[in-house]
Amino acid sequence: MDMNISPIGHLSCNKKERYEAPRQGIHAKGTTGIIKLNPHQNFEQAVSDLEGFDRIWLIYGFHLNNWWKPLVSPPRFRERKIGLFATRSPFRPNQIGMSCVKLLKVDKLKIYISEFDLLDQTPIYDIKPYIPYCDSFPDASTGWLVPNNVLYDLVMTDIFKTKSDWLSENCKFNVENYARVQLQVDPENDERRRIIKTDKTFEDKTVYTLNFRTWKIDYITDKENNKVHIIDIY
Amino acid sequence: MDMNISPIGHLSCNKKERYEAPRQGIHAKGTTGIIKLNPHQNFEQAVSDLEGFDRIWLIYGFHLNNWWKPLVSPPRFRERKIGLFATRSPFRPNQIGMSCVKLLKVDKLKIYISEFDLLDQTPIYDIKPYIPYCDSFPDASTGWLVPNNVLYDLVMTDIFKTKSDWLSENCKFNVENYARVQLQVDPENDERRRIIKTDKTFEDKTVYTLNFRTWKIDYITDKENNKVHIIDIY
Repeated sequence: MDMNISPIGHLSCNKKERYEAPRQGIHAKGTTGIIKLNPHQNFEQAVSDLEGFDRIWLIYGFHLNNWWKPLVSPPRFRERKIGLFATRSPFRPNQIGMSCVKLLKVDKLKIYISEFDLLDQTPIYDIKPYIPYCDSFPDASTGWLVPNNVLYDLVMTDIFKTKSDWLSENCKFNVENYARVQLQVDPENDERRRIIKTDKTFEDKTVYTLNFRTWKIDYITDKENNKVHIIDIY
Repeated sequence: MDMNISPIGHLSCNKKERYEAPRQGIHAKGTTGIIKLNPHQNFEQAVSDLEGFDRIWLIYGFHLNNWWKPLVSPPRFRERKIGLFATRSPFRPNQIGMSCVKLLKVDKLKIYISEFDLLDQTPIYDIKPYIPYCDSFPDASTGWLVPNNVLYDLVMTDIFKTKSDWLSENCKFNVENYARVQLQVDPENDERRRIIKTDKTFEDKTVYTLNFRTWKIDYITDKENNKVHIIDIY
């Protein structure tokens, strides 16, 4: 039995392109998005009492995708291909995603959230409260997946900061957010499309380059302290 | 943007009617179900590596439902009506459910599960691995919802056991499972449609009656030991 589903609203946020979204929502602390629910459907009432929950589930569409393959190569796992249903890949037979996000505030038809991995204009199909006793299994084993939870902090030079602020004001794209999303996990993995290991060094460390549109971002990593030092963008 | 979704398979299990499903899957330990994936869609490959996961998410359709209301009366909560999106009610604008279930075994196109709250013939739209670091938030607060986690054990008299075994063999319905689902939580709440507080007593305790089709099940509760003693079915 096929089913037709209609959005109850859409997400509005400053992440527009696939490569701006973090792998998982919990890596996106500090970014706020707004779910704008459709008017004239009594959703004002349907969101009553939602505000007591720390977290909510969003069921949404991977609206930029329309194909799938049975085996996929997850990011940062190169040993072999993995069965699609054993991954959270956004390319699926039914392009449905689910994410547990942090609920900040409900204001009539606007729901403010953070810690999400969704892109701007994502269609939202359902909202459910997060209930630990049926959703939380902290010790569940995860098979092939060895989560890499080491998160790197970004440290920026003044010159990078000046340029990225200028870009943010004049070109409306947030280079800092992009660099954080791309580099906070596994920043030296040059099998990723946008990362290049260069022959250059800086303070005795190998310089890597992260590509952003036609721009290049040079950085070095300090593994001991889990820091990425961003040198310049040009 | 509306989206059309097609089942990737269907659940097969011995729970046929809404009132046979437990409130939450974790209340249904011991029951096994089989997700039968569709043939000829390469799903044999798509389930590779799933077996390493203790738990999986099912995204499915509430296939018996086709309406919704913005405010609902959750079971065992009578203070006021609650906004639909702050509940897991199965009556929703898009009739999509998600449940974290226990994965037992994968055998080609058959996926064996337990601890589920789904009914027989439920259409399954997606399977995703359960990943604690993005799905598990054991301390998330839950607003209006005060989960009643006291689970009662069922103790059955020989006469009840004999009769229920006979019914199970000859009428193909599982009275024991039904009684467990209905009585393991809050067994004395006679605001529930199927529970009646009688004027009778048994061993100095008030007898309650649980209705099952045209049958009646008499029981008493032992709150101190979280036990429900089932006396008879007639």
